[in-house]
Amino acid sequence: MNLDKLREECGVIGIYAPGEEKISRLAYYGLHALQHRGQESAGIAVNTDGHIMYYKEMGLVQEVFNDTVIERLNGDIAIGHVRYSTTGESYVTNAQPLVVHYKGGAIALAHNGNLVNASEIREKMQDDGTIFQTSIDSEVIATLIAKYGKLGIEEAIKKALKEIKGAYALVITCENKLVGIRDPHGLRPLCIGKTDKGYVLSSESCAFNVLDATFVRDVLPGEMVIIEDNNITSIMYEENAKKALCSFEFVYFARPDSTIDEQSVYISRKNAGKLLAKEHPVEADMVIAVPDSGTVAAIGYAEESKIPFGEGLIKNRYVGRTFIQPDQKMRERSVRLKLNVLKENVEGKRIIMVDDSIVRGTTSGKIVALLKNAGAKEVHVRVSSPPVKYSCYFGIDTPETKKLVGSENSIEEIRKMIGADSLGYLTIDGLIKSADEVNTNLCTACFNGNYPMDVPKNANKYLFDKGCTDIRL
Amino acid sequence: MNLDKLREECGVIGIYAPGEEKISRLAYYGLHALQHRGQESAGIAVNTDGHIMYYKEMGLVQEVFNDTVIERLNGDIAIGHVRYSTTGESYVTNAQPLVVHYKGGAIALAHNGNLVNASEIREKMQDDGTIFQTSIDSEVIATLIAKYGKLGIEEAIKKALKEIKGAYALVITCENKLVGIRDPHGLRPLCIGKTDKGYVLSSESCAFNVLDATFVRDVLPGEMVIIEDNNITSIMYEENAKKALCSFEFVYFARPDSTIDEQSVYISRKNAGKLLAKEHPVEADMVIAVPDSGTVAAIGYAEESKIPFGEGLIKNRYVGRTFIQPDQKMRERSVRLKLNVLKENVEGKRIIMVDDSIVRGTTSGKIVALLKNAGAKEVHVRVSSPPVKYSCYFGIDTPETKKLVGSENSIEEIRKMIGADSLGYLTIDGLIKSADEVNTNLCTACFNGNYPMDVPKNANKYLFDKGCTDIRL
Amino acid sequence: MNLDKLREECGVIGIYAPGEEKISRLAYYGLHALQHRGQESAGIAVNTDGHIMYYKEMGLVQEVFNDTVIERLNGDIAIGHVRYSTTGESYVTNAQPLVVHYKGGAIALAHNGNLVNASEIREKMQDDGTIFQTSIDSEVIATLIAKYGKLGIEEAIKKALKEIKGAYALVITCENKLVGIRDPHGLRPLCIGKTDKGYVLSSESCAFNVLDATFVRDVLPGEMVIIEDNNITSIMYEENAKKALCSFEFVYFARPDSTIDEQSVYISRKNAGKLLAKEHPVEADMVIAVPDSGTVAAIGYAEESKIPFGEGLIKNRYVGRTFIQPDQKMRERSVRLKLNVLKENVEGKRIIMVDDSIVRGTTSGKIVALLKNAGAKEVHVRVSSPPVKYSCYFGIDTPETKKLVGSENSIEEIRKMIGADSLGYLTIDGLIKSADEVNTNLCTACFNGNYPMDVPKNANKYLFDKGCTDIRL
Amino acid sequence: MNLDKLREECGVIGIYAPGEEKISRLAYYGLHALQHRGQESAGIAVNTDGHIMYYKEMGLVQEVFNDTVIERLNGDIAIGHVRYSTTGESYVTNAQPLVVHYKGGAIALAHNGNLVNASEIREKMQDDGTIFQTSIDSEVIATLIAKYGKLGIEEAIKKALKEIKGAYALVITCENKLVGIRDPHGLRPLCIGKTDKGYVLSSESCAFNVLDATFVRDVLPGEMVIIEDNNITSIMYEENAKKALCSFEFVYFARPDSTIDEQSVYISRKNAGKLLAKEHPVEADMVIAVPDSGTVAAIGYAEESKIPFGEGLIKNRYVGRTFIQPDQKMRERSVRLKLNVLKENVEGKRIIMVDDSIVRGTTSGKIVALLKNAGAKEVHVRVSSPPVKYSCYFGIDTPETKKLVGSENSIEEIRKMIGADSLGYLTIDGLIKSADEVNTNLCTACFNGNYPMDVPKNANKYLFDKGCTDIRL
Repeated sequence: MNLDKLREECGVIGIYAPGEEKISRLAYYGLHALQHRGQESAGIAVNTDGHIMYYKEMGLVQEVFNDTVIERLNGDIAIGHVRYSTTGESYVTNAQPLVVHYKGGAIALAHNGNLVNASEIREKMQDDGTIFQTSIDSEVIATLIAKYGKLGIEEAIKKALKEIKGAYALVITCENKLVGIRDPHGLRPLCIGKTDKGYVLSSESCAFNVLDATFVRDVLPGEMVIIEDNNITSIMYEENAKKALCSFEFVYFARPDSTIDEQSVYISRKNAGKLLAKEHPVEADMVIAVPDSGTVAAIGYAEESKIPFGEGLIKNRYVGRTFIQPDQKMRERSVRLKLNVLKENVEGKRIIMVDDSIVRGTTSGKIVALLKNAGAKEVHVRVSSPPVKYSCYFGIDTPETKKLVGSENSIEEIRKMIGADSLGYLTIDGLIKSADEVNTNLCTACFNGNYPMDVPKNANKYLFDKGCTDIRL
Repeated sequence: MNLDKLREECGVIGIYAPGEEKISRLAYYGLHALQHRGQESAGIAVNTDGHIMYYKEMGLVQEVFNDTVIERLNGDIAIGHVRYSTTGESYVTNAQPLVVHYKGGAIALAHNGNLVNASEIREKMQDDGTIFQTSIDSEVIATLIAKYGKLGIEEAIKKALKEIKGAYALVITCENKLVGIRDPHGLRPLCIGKTDKGYVLSSESCAFNVLDATFVRDVLPGEMVIIEDNNITSIMYEENAKKALCSFEFVYFARPDSTIDEQSVYISRKNAGKLLAKEHPVEADMVIAVPDSGTVAAIGYAEESKIPFGEGLIKNRYVGRTFIQPDQKMRERSVRLKLNVLKENVEGKRIIMVDDSIVRGTTSGKIVALLKNAGAKEVHVRVSSPPVKYSCYFGIDTPETKKLVGSENSIEEIRKMIGADSLGYLTIDGLIKSADEVNTNLCTACFNGNYPMDVPKNANKYLFDKGCTDIRL
Repeated sequence: MNLDKLREECGVIGIYAPGEEKISRLAYYGLHALQHRGQESAGIAVNTDGHIMYYKEMGLVQEVFNDTVIERLNGDIAIGHVRYSTTGESYVTNAQPLVVHYKGGAIALAHNGNLVNASEIREKMQDDGTIFQTSIDSEVIATLIAKYGKLGIEEAIKKALKEIKGAYALVITCENKLVGIRDPHGLRPLCIGKTDKGYVLSSESCAFNVLDATFVRDVLPGEMVIIEDNNITSIMYEENAKKALCSFEFVYFARPDSTIDEQSVYISRKNAGKLLAKEHPVEADMVIAVPDSGTVAAIGYAEESKIPFGEGLIKNRYVGRTFIQPDQKMRERSVRLKLNVLKENVEGKRIIMVDDSIVRGTTSGKIVALLKNAGAKEVHVRVSSPPVKYSCYFGIDTPETKKLVGSENSIEEIRKMIGADSLGYLTIDGLIKSADEVNTNLCTACFNGNYPMDVPKNANKYLFDKGCTDIRL
Repeated sequence: MNLDKLREECGVIGIYAPGEEKISRLAYYGLHALQHRGQESAGIAVNTDGHIMYYKEMGLVQEVFNDTVIERLNGDIAIGHVRYSTTGESYVTNAQPLVVHYKGGAIALAHNGNLVNASEIREKMQDDGTIFQTSIDSEVIATLIAKYGKLGIEEAIKKALKEIKGAYALVITCENKLVGIRDPHGLRPLCIGKTDKGYVLSSESCAFNVLDATFVRDVLPGEMVIIEDNNITSIMYEENAKKALCSFEFVYFARPDSTIDEQSVYISRKNAGKLLAKEHPVEADMVIAVPDSGTVAAIGYAEESKIPFGEGLIKNRYVGRTFIQPDQKMRERSVRLKLNVLKENVEGKRIIMVDDSIVRGTTSGKIVALLKNAGAKEVHVRVSSPPVKYSCYFGIDTPETKKLVGSENSIEEIRKMIGADSLGYLTIDGLIKSADEVNTNLCTACFNGNYPMDVPKNANKYLFDKGCTDIRL
């Protein structure tokens, strides 16, 4: 039932607000603002003087929590997590925050990203007699922190960070601390806000408005911030890595009203649309978006090209995750459950259809066909990001390379497949330029294979655990 | 948690498809396309040679039905219903289709609209010893049909229609028939589509695409269509009433990709935006919409005024109906859970903010404040419909007159209340013109009190039943 | 998964307690005490000065109600109902109390029993244009009351009672009244209790203890009691019918701690066991019961025969209604999920196994086999009721005659089928004697076909509604 | 809502049946037969060649599992667990089987019992950098096995067993093995059965009947059995400990149709009743039981004393765990929700009331009062076990010592408290004799404080985790 998009792994939030009566309520609202980063499971852990209470379940934030649970989750510090929605099986065992007990007490951890050496570390630790109870790499981080626990929490975390490689935005709470960490390349975003009562850490700044928080700054790549006694301490645990923020945060993942590494997501998307118009101009009567993700770029394209922006496709707002099994016929035209053409608006027109990305190429053709059936004279597809050709190892759920249409086919081949009259992708340079007003430095590995770090040959993207499976229905 | 909008009562669907193996599946997809017309409850009844099976429950179409239920709901004819979402209590007893047994067998009925003389008829029938088991006016229709049942179903329905007054789009199934009826004024829409296997009746044409149906025509005001033996028979049971389609179908209720009485909803909304620009021009830097309902009019306004259209407000797509109870603080800024400002886009600018309607006036001020706080220099509010001043008795959940901000205040007073730099509403003439490309003839009673029929003094909008309450949690 | 028993239709409760703060709580406890009379659905309706609130759902009393619902169900008068558990489909539409609106206001009705002329009345009323929304005969009673509603509630009820034939214990509330009615033959039990605050009506006296009520008397056959202004008025609406209380109340349905028509159920069962010992003596080492329903009779048998009572079969207390589908193998030995043999106790012994009844004969053989496999030398089956040979039309779910093992087979044939060394049933005379210490006058129609009233040829036991089906899963 | 009883911790089952298609179905039926040992949560893990799938949730076996889950849980070996029902909070995190990953692969473990040195080991391991994710001592066992994992599973388990102290019956599956272990004192029972396809391990033999298994023998104290290649290997890892099976298995926990350490539970309970009659004879008219747990002893008492056995108290079979909150009045007479007196049977009689145990003494007085109110002339209470005076550290949920009525009061004081005419407890010698036909050797620590091993001063009975709490509602 999903359109052809990549999936983000997670969103994290951390709230430091001693004295705030209803901290879990704030975490709830914050997670709700980050819901687009993950719809599989949600969880909140609250910390009162080192004692941690938590609740996590499969489902949307609104489904997982109710008044009774929120009422009981009291504390001075809260962290929260949303996880992405898989089509297949989902295990509550793998939901976060992960809460564990180590020598220093209880610790709760929420993680956005993916480690590339988790299997390696895990195997080594298993050799030494350690057990693991989940199949998430985040447990490796927690286990490493515990291993070094007697050095004190700060040192323990630092030692653990020395060993792990990959992408991570982490929020951790233990003792009376709220800790925020961003990996040395800054692959995943994390930013700091200030409230009356304390501080907020969030994957994206779009969560600040609802929490009455003001944006302070991004956590820096390689930085660990420790919030305690209503004070922030910054520790740069690694300063030499090249910055490489995930491009797809700008292309698709982040909400347009967020600012990441000082770059407005909205403006970057509009820039991408404008640059796309420059790179791939075409004569046409109307620019339309594939809603909602293509809208901002389409507006930019229209602005640059002076071709009017209009709506050609209407999205059903009620498409959720509990659809009945489609039969064969419906599977073939499942895109119609989500999108309907505005016949009056497209009939007889030459249409420029802007989408943010094409991954497998499974739906673009169906949308082009809908438009043509409705009488569009021409359909020119414009994509506001480059062709996705390589797997991501840093927290994005990319299909196998051979299922990436951009990897296996030329642009002309793709154009034919989707039945477009012309097809244009934004160049990598264009994408960088669109987001790089302030030297953002993006990871473009999924477009060109230039990974910001060595990816071990046996880097399983996940700990596909042949060992055990938790069934949840 | 809801923005300041009127609420539609219901949507109905009817599918005639003997031989179609999975008719309930089609009804499900059809109802899903009509989900915007009602989110409180959903139901489907299927008819096999006069035997009717049905299932209805509180919730969205996707929540109410699952594979097992859909699998069991087999038949040759199906009707379906979605009902709107109240904030307060909801009773499954009042969900539809209503299925009853009368002399002629079982009959299932789904109703969109509201009768103005239901109480009156009900009281009279109770005097004669009739019982009622729900508090919906639709039961009055069913009971009248039963009363005349021995005349045969067609005659019985016609006799019943002679007695009821008000707004109704009805789909009924019994024997081997699918019946569609629209009240003499055509207050509620209903249209006919054709499929390979048979026919479809639907509140809106937007449901046809997913059902592979082609639009045939609207059911006419005062018309009853009977589909049987794969044939349509038309009976004009009342031809002299003045047509009066509900304006709000164009303003807000209907999906933009529907066509009602030969008028494209999208185009009428865009027209409304253009006319609004002509009626209330203002110098500004950007036209923005209150998403999603103001978007089409905003595009029209921008086009007419040559002021660029841009996004100023981002809507959280995950706002559902199961939110935890907000505390006082959150209640005050609840609009932030739904909307966030694109600061980069509005800062320092003169903004024209287009909304489709203002009902109570409770959220417009909050949105204007969000924009001003984000640095908008001026905020000019433009509303693509006239001020709502009168209660509707035909199926729209309008608040009491004194809660209608347009009824109690001058436009200048409203402008001050919401803190806008200027405020302009579309005129009634403008609205009529926007939708009336083909002589649509609209009911504008909520704007000017010109009701298309006498509204009895004791016309309770609903059968507020002091008699009994069914508790469902 | 059920042992081979007949099923009671329902239990009813009525509580009159103006000023009692938590009347629904009392109804809940009362229904809980009557849970053995029906496990399919439960419902409570409360009446405050003519306004009725209600809640009903599929499930046990404990499953249907929670604190929130109970908290909201306030009133001066409450009635409640439990309905029996079918193996097949269950429809919430058919749950009770039935709440309807008629001229006089709202009325709630709970019914235990079955009418024999419901179809007939229903058809006649449908001819006159009346609709029905459920497939229960209780709706016929409510509809008749409404028909005569303008005569005032008392007269209306009396007129309705003149028309209906069959078995009924009814509790009704409307206006400020609680009404209790028992059919002219007294086929179903109903008794009156007194509390501090008012009165209680209950199918069985076992509910009084938990409600702190003292037993006053049974409602008489043909009597209607009206409780109002904290007073009881008695109206004998029919006095000439022959009393005929259902035998199976004593054999199996009622709880042993109830007293029905002044006869202790426990003592009648023990008497039955004693008489069984006299009628069918046999030499043996131990008397055991098929738990739990055979226990009291087994104790009686042991006492009379001087053969020691012992436990030979242990029942699993956790057998509920949500078992997974058994595979073929498990179906064959499903009795083992419920019963296990105490090998030590039966090995090498001659066993007298006492059961309360044999209906289809499907499990007795399995139990005998279990005992023999465990080493019982002989198994003598004794049944504390006569063979069931005829269908019941008065509220008991008897299988078709040809599935009644006692109807189609001689006792010797049954003995062979179940593999017992001997088999003895209590005689009808014995059964009457066991329960008839105070001239109880029993209906013995299921044993000898002597129905207490004419059963119309077309007396469908239920309104098997070919018209429509409500699917609930 | 619970009568005054001690609570067992758990029941375990293990099924070795390569080639059996529906192994989880067997585990389900087996757990169902052990349901009396724990009603809080249930879980099943299945092992196919080292890969483990599992499912566990709060609730009864029938509530936790449905056809879909059972269908998916395929494998060659299954283990299952039921956990007891607490009144307070319940955490699914603590449900079992516990499934972890260690060097050797996945391992699933189900544990009945309690370790006395779990905190100690846990702290030491935390010092070495190990984390824990639950608050159950079973995780300590799994963690120890992992620690020694590289020695191979057998050696690892043996090393782990050397370190742990306390009570445990364990079933473990990993690789292609099913392992059963009983602690050196044999505090918790575990026995072996044989089926067509393989083997069964079970806490109690009552599960064998439904699985078509025949009893082979008990696992011996200090024995580990390894089932692999359809063969059993026995390893006596500790032979010198004194046997000390928990007395309460015979008094209350085990089902009467189980045989533990070659002693029939039924016979031991009947013996206890007989010995009780010898130790505490009294003249009376009838012996009654507090159902169901006192029934067998009451039958024994009656047999020995020649005073007839009868039923005086009827138990409501539908008392479950989801009762609404009782108000104060109902709390006081809550015993009435469970028990009702058979007035006819006790009125005017001298009653001997046999119960299996008195723990807090909170309900005995209420039951005596019920009997006296119903007209019993005398009530002589007889208890078929000695006064409980000491806390258990081996897996029984005993209240604090000061809440144990037998610890703080003389027998005469208790008699007065409960209002009995006389009170007699079985002696410890009597209890031993009742169960010790074959030299059973019982742990009687809760009666006399003679613990079978040193109980460390800081032996927390559970790992009451101040560190963290998982909220589940």
